[in-house]
Parts: sequence; structure tokens; C-alpha cells
Amino acid sequence: MTDRDQPLWSRIADRLGHEIAAGLAPGAKLPTEAQLAERFGVNRHTVRRAIAALAERGIVYARRGAGVFVAAKPTEYPLTRRMRFHRALSATGRVPGRKVLSVQGFPASEDEASALHLAVGDEVLRVEGLTLSDGVVIGHFRSAFPQARLPGMAGAIGSGLGVTESLRACGVPDYTRAWTKITASAADALLAGHLQLRRGDPVIRAESLNLGPDGAPVEYGLAHFAGERVTLSVIPD
Amino acid sequence: MTDRDQPLWSRIADRLGHEIAAGLAPGAKLPTEAQLAERFGVNRHTVRRAIAALAERGIVYARRGAGVFVAAKPTEYPLTRRMRFHRALSATGRVPGRKVLSVQGFPASEDEASALHLAVGDEVLRVEGLTLSDGVVIGHFRSAFPQARLPGMAGAIGSGLGVTESLRACGVPDYTRAWTKITASAADALLAGHLQLRRGDPVIRAESLNLGPDGAPVEYGLAHFAGERVTLSVIPD
Repeated sequence: MTDRDQPLWSRIADRLGHEIAAGLAPGAKLPTEAQLAERFGVNRHTVRRAIAALAERGIVYARRGAGVFVAAKPTEYPLTRRMRFHRALSATGRVPGRKVLSVQGFPASEDEASALHLAVGDEVLRVEGLTLSDGVVIGHFRSAFPQARLPGMAGAIGSGLGVTESLRACGVPDYTRAWTKITASAADALLAGHLQLRRGDPVIRAESLNLGPDGAPVEYGLAHFAGERVTLSVIPD
Repeated sequence: MTDRDQPLWSRIADRLGHEIAAGLAPGAKLPTEAQLAERFGVNRHTVRRAIAALAERGIVYARRGAGVFVAAKPTEYPLTRRMRFHRALSATGRVPGRKVLSVQGFPASEDEASALHLAVGDEVLRVEGLTLSDGVVIGHFRSAFPQARLPGMAGAIGSGLGVTESLRACGVPDYTRAWTKITASAADALLAGHLQLRRGDPVIRAESLNLGPDGAPVEYGLAHFAGERVTLSVIPD
């Protein structure tokens, strides 16, 4: 577009955005501010503003001290009442994946007991693992299932079934999302290791509760997603 | 609770959690790892694990180099089809606030044009401001309204009306949320200034589109919230 009213930084942002879309791969490094300033014949402040606009649109991201890089198009993860991870990602052309890291029984923590309507100390099955999209780790999850309500869950998950199939094997033919609570936090060392991020990088924190057809809680989950790689989309049913 | 199966770090986390709930104000600094290790007669690794568990529950947060602090209970912000900021916050006992920083016409950017079904360069009214909860800034927003569709919008917003009332004054009696896209990002210098955060702190980035009763887009918004202060809750209608 050429619009005389459009500020210079905005025109540079659009130009760079088109060039990135046309030919730069995710992870590619942009030229330095000085190089871009020279190329466009503007000062570095103008370049910085253009880069900030691209970063705001999620097209590039800055790593302090290292430069500015082309962002991968994030995986879109829909949050609906009937959200199913595998089906939802497949629908957007991604290959979904899941790697279970551990399956173990524990006495319920206060958070787990409160969400699952259990007494503190009642046993829950904790399943911890990684969520993948096109082979790239995008998130870490930890789900708690009420053991007494779902005695066959450990065996089902352990045999490699997904959550939907495991719940079905335990007599829960269907489930719905009661609520999801979302915030942003900084990756700690453990999460940074799982998600291949740096400590302090922004992660989405999503806590959620799933209910069986009778309204009883069947899964309480806490998931963290790499901010750069995931967009949660809320589309009312 | 006393449960012989509960690991030591988890018992310490519960104990500290109760003490914080009983008597420490948001922003209060916790004793150092060394002090807590001495008090509980455990090593610092165990203390660190307990603190990490409290951080995961959102009860404390660490500022690298400065220590561990008690987190304020975050403002819960519901994302529903009929979400209205003022009404929703009032319902949770918070006093909602909004401070408009600027109201100005601009040619639509590509993102705005695409969301609002305009041609690039068609005029939009950009309204930028801060969102408050109980007098504390929790977010920054920038909304774009289609000027041709809503000619009276600048005057209505400028006169101090909220978005709902301004749209009503422009002949849009009601609107619904078409979608919200959420991710986590790191605060840049400008946003850090607005939200009283440090550069690099985690922020929630929420992009959204509102439709009028005829299905035509009336508002395209980009909001950023301080991760420490806000939880977005998704409760299916």
C-alpha cells in the first residue's frame, strides 16, 4: 500500500512484514537496526518502532542481546466446551503429539482436592507430559484424575491411550470443559528445560476442569505453553 | 493436614501457604531461602521446591535478584460472548476503572482492516488506554472502531462514555464477542511503563473482535494484561 498519511515506521513495518512472509523461515535473524536504518535511509528510532510493531503482531520476536528473529506461526489451540486436543490440532493442519513423562498415584493436594471434589489426601493419578505440534514441544501438562472414580485410568494411560480414549475405557463416554483459567507467567528452570525456553521467558498458564456426563469432575489439569508457539483461541460455542 | 506420604517440600509449601493466607499482605517479602531452611530444619533445595510449588499456585512470585514476594490475588476477567468489563468486575467485588490516554483517527493497518472488514487505509478510530481494578492498573488496551460505520464514536468516547455506552450512542444497541486469541509475551519498554512492570515481565496478550447485532464488526481490540494481576477465565456460555 502507499498512503501518504501512513507514518514512515508503519510503512517500513508493512514492507518488512511482506518480505518475511515471502521468504524468511521461522528462526531466521533479521538484519541489525543499523543495517535496516541504512537500507531504508531512516534513523534507528524509526527502525525500532517498525520492529516493535512487527513484534506486536507476533511476526518477529526479540531476544535481548541476541537480535530480532522471525517468529514461527503459532499453533492455534481452541478452548471450547468440547475441546479435544488431537482433533482440534488436526483440523488446523498440524500433526498433534503427546509424550507422557510419568503416571503416578499421589495424595491429592489442596488445589486438586478442591477442584475434583475430593478430600485432601484422597488418591489422585497424576499424569505429566509434553504436548507437541508438528513434532515441536509446545507445552507441558500435569493432569490429576480421581483414582476412586476412575480405577482403570493408570492402566489405560500407561498402555498409550490418549485422555479421551482412556476416560472412555473407564466408563466416561464423554466429557466437557467446565472452565479454563488463563494467565501469563515466567518459565522457571524446570519448565524452561521442558519447553526449550530460557528461564524467565513468557509462558501461558492454563488451569482447567473437565466434567463427565453426570457433572462429576474427571480431570483437573495445569498446562503451560510456550508463549511464542501457542495462541489459545476462545470462540463462544 | 498431616499425611505421612506427603513429601517434606509439599508440607512446607502448605504450611507457608497457610501462613501467607493468614497474615501476609500482597507485595510482602518472604524470608530468604537460608532463613526458611534454618527455620524448618531442611536444606535449601527442599525450600526451593516448596517455593516453586507456591509460585505455581500463584501464591508467591520471584523477582530474580530481589527475592520472593506474596502475590496479590489476581483480578478475574471473564471471557464470554457477552462480556462487559465493568459489569463483570463489579460482580467479583472489584471496582473497575478505565483511563483513556488517546482518541485519534488513523488509516487502518492491515490487521485492523482484515478484522474489521475494511480496506487498508480506510479510517479507524483508535482508542488507547489503561484498565484498572481497585485503582491498580492491570492492563493496557488499544481498540479500533470503523469510522464510516460509527461516525459519532470519537465524540462519545471523548465525552467520557464507556465502550458499551458509546456504541449505544452510535446506534449499536448491543454487541457480542466473536473471538478472543490469547498468548503470553514479554513486556517491551513502553508496555512495562504503562503497566508498572519491568521490561521482559510476562504479559497476557489478548486480541479480540466484537460484532454488532447485524454481524458487522464494530470493535477490534488488542489488550495486554500484567500476568501477575489478571486471570482470564473461560466459562462456556
